[in-house]
Order: sequence, then structure tokens, then C-alpha cells
Amino acid sequence: MKEIQDIVLIGAGNVAWHLGKALKSKGLNILQVISPNTASALASELSCEAITDTSLANPNADLYLICVTDTQVESAAKTLTKNNGIVAHTSGSMPINALDTHESFGSFYPLQTISKEKEIDFSSVPFFVEANNKNTSEALQSLAEKLSTNVQEINSKQRKTLHVAAVFACNFTNHCYSIAHNLLAENGLNFDALKPLIKETAEKAILNNPNTMQTGPAIRKDEKTLQEHNDFLKEHPTLQKIYTLLSQDIINNSKNS
Amino acid sequence: MKEIQDIVLIGAGNVAWHLGKALKSKGLNILQVISPNTASALASELSCEAITDTSLANPNADLYLICVTDTQVESAAKTLTKNNGIVAHTSGSMPINALDTHESFGSFYPLQTISKEKEIDFSSVPFFVEANNKNTSEALQSLAEKLSTNVQEINSKQRKTLHVAAVFACNFTNHCYSIAHNLLAENGLNFDALKPLIKETAEKAILNNPNTMQTGPAIRKDEKTLQEHNDFLKEHPTLQKIYTLLSQDIINNSKNS
Repeated sequence: MKEIQDIVLIGAGNVAWHLGKALKSKGLNILQVISPNTASALASELSCEAITDTSLANPNADLYLICVTDTQVESAAKTLTKNNGIVAHTSGSMPINALDTHESFGSFYPLQTISKEKEIDFSSVPFFVEANNKNTSEALQSLAEKLSTNVQEINSKQRKTLHVAAVFACNFTNHCYSIAHNLLAENGLNFDALKPLIKETAEKAILNNPNTMQTGPAIRKDEKTLQEHNDFLKEHPTLQKIYTLLSQDIINNSKNS
Repeated sequence: MKEIQDIVLIGAGNVAWHLGKALKSKGLNILQVISPNTASALASELSCEAITDTSLANPNADLYLICVTDTQVESAAKTLTKNNGIVAHTSGSMPINALDTHESFGSFYPLQTISKEKEIDFSSVPFFVEANNKNTSEALQSLAEKLSTNVQEINSKQRKTLHVAAVFACNFTNHCYSIAHNLLAENGLNFDALKPLIKETAEKAILNNPNTMQTGPAIRKDEKTLQEHNDFLKEHPTLQKIYTLLSQDIINNSKNS
């Protein structure tokens, strides 16, 4: 197995930004950042070359790390310079076959929500690695282990399962926070009131199976409160639908468990 | 304003259990725990009398704290011994008028998710107080300030808003964690993989407005991934509905903000 040392980053969004900085801080050598419009800020941050076109990538890198939106992964891989390195994407959903125009390819998936505004401590972020052959898998795992103590090899089906589960645990959870924020703002109340609750709810799910930690009117089958909350939301028909659907599913889930 | 010192607890569930212990630890005197079937364990924990019937409550307490399910608050108040103390409930949803058969009444609402299995540090829990007169409000606020640094007076409408928002930020969030847990379990994957993500998502919402921190396929309007996730959930029609409804609302919310 050849150790990965020289890396070309494809993409300059949140994932490229934070992964690029973390890899550089671990002594990896970032050769280029490739992005049609926005490569220069990140390239300047990483003291490397900014280019706009994947067909002009340096052909001598050990790893071409594709950190672009899922819909652009395949075309980025297809237009990428022919090379002897590994081509890997950071997507939760894309099968690795999307990269099969190259010889050695795989996935290098950090399971975390990454926004430009907030620094990420990758040391506790789970990395999931998959590749089309053993050497490539080992090289990607070894790279991930430089960033994190939590690295696993999985297949594309397992990665998709993790991604769907992450949408529920992160994106939908965050949307519930947004809904709560906006309901309070509408009524002149401050979101700060909910912060200890948000913290405690997350801590409980980390300590225990969340199925056993549910509280509130639905799990108590408190029809009167459920109806009152429904009435409260009468000017927000979509929120009424979300409230009803999730409450009913909490009740059904409690019957099954 | 007469300082509250002697307290009768009505109810022996999660809220009564944790509040009772916290109040006792602050030097308050718990006289009795009243619950039809389950008073004795908590009464023994608090070294006080266990009784089964609100009509037999000690008439000399300063506070009768009703910690029962919303649907039982009114009947507990109506059957309670005539007294010169304050009668207050801990409900997020009940208007204080539910207690108006008494002279001094109010609400003493800790905004937190309380399960028997996990200790609560009340010092950072927001307490919301409401009462039918100034003396009662001051006495309840003063009691809350013995437990927490975060005490506010609000009205019943504001308390209901907080409660509905809390259902989204806590109960629905926890249900999203449960769905994620169960999807992983079905596919032989461990919920531990999501814990750093759950922690980070909560931390981001505590640091920033969650409306600005959304990530994932819906906010990127990545129709291909949304469709693939929908297909992945084909054996779970309710989860498909939840996935579609929340994703659509994330998209709509991003247009409005």
C-alpha cells in the first residue's frame, strides 16, 4: 500500500474547506484546489494552486478528493485528468461505481454536519471508507486514521443507510429546532429558553436508546393537549400536518416497542 | 409575601420525583406525597408521609404542587383540601384558571425533558411562573430562584407557545433520533455512529440561529438524493411521508428566510 501524501481537492464548499484544512494540519500536501468559480479563497488558505477545470488537474497526486454536491460527482470524475492515484468522493449517497472510469476509486465519508461558520474537530468524527480494491481501501483508511480515531470500512448500502439515518438525526432535528425558533419569534419569545432542553434531549439520546427516553403529550397519549396544540397551530397548516404525523408515529412506535 | 417553606407534592411521576428531590435538597420541607398508587417510593426517598387522596392533604402547607398529567390537574385541584396556601401546577399547557377553586393559584413550569432514569441539574433549567395575584407570583418566583438562575414570569398564552415549541425541539427531535436508531438497527449498524452528529447538531443550534445552519440534501435541493432516500424508505410508508413533508418544509423555509 502506498501512503497518501499529495492531494488534489475538487470542490471548495464546506466539506472541502474543513477537510482541506484538517488534512493540511496533519502534514498532508494539498497540491491544488479545483472549482469553477470559488477555488481561490480556499487555495490561498491552503497555500496551494487554484484551478478551475478538473481536466487540468496535476496528474501526479496520490488522492483526488471529490467534495462536490452529489449531482456533480460523476461529471467531476469523468472530466478528471487520467492519473495513477486514488479518486474518492465524500458523499453519503453516491455508490463508488460513479467513479469507475478510474482505476482505483472509493468513498471517504465523514459523518458530520459541516457548515463554513463552525470549526470541526475531526478527531471524534466517524469516517466510513469503501474502495474497489484492498490497497485503495487500506490507503483511505490510513488517511482517515490521521484525522479521526473512529474509522470503519463499510459498503455502499450501509453508507446509504447511515446517510438516511443522518438526515433524520441531523437535518430533520435541526428543522424541528428551526420551527421552534420561528414559533417563539412570532410570539415575541426568545429561543434561548429552549437551549437547555435541546442540550438535554441530545445528551439523553447519547446516553440511552432514544426509543426509551421519549416524553411529552404524544407518548402520554394526552389527546386533550395534542388537540390544543393542533388548534394553536391553526394558522400554520404545514406545521399542523408535521405535528399530527410525528405525534401519531410516536404513539405507534410506543406500541411496537 | 410569605416565603414558601412547607410543600405537599401531588403526583409521584418523573416531574414530582426530580422536583421533590431538588426542593428538599434546597432545604424546603416536603410534608406529603399524594398519589393513588405510587406515593410510597417517593415519600420514602423524601422521608415524608405518603397518602392516596388529595382530600386528605395536610391543610397547613404553603404550596400544593400538582405534578400530574394535564388531564388530571383539574380534578386533583377540585378534590384538594381547602387551604390557605398556594396551589400550583407544573404543566406547560394548562391555563392557571384550571385551579381557580382555590384562592391563590398559579403555574410553576420547568421547561425541561424529565425522565426518571436521568438526574436533572435544575440550576440551568428555565422556570416560568404565572399566578392569579402579585403575592403568589412573587412567592413562586422566589421558590424557583432557589432551584434555578433562570426564572421568568409569563402568561398562559406564552406558556402554551413555549410548550408547543418544546414539543418540536425535544419530543419530535427525539423521535427523529429514534427513527434513525431503528433504521440503523434494521440494517445491522450501530447508533453510536450518529452520536457525534447529534451532539454537533445540537451545539450548532445553541450557538446560532438553526435557520441558518441547515445542511443536507433538502436545503441543497438535491432532488436525486431526495428521491433515492424516498426509494430507500419504500417499506416504511410513514417514514416516507415524514421524510417528504419535512424535506419540503426545509425547502419552503429556505425560500422564506
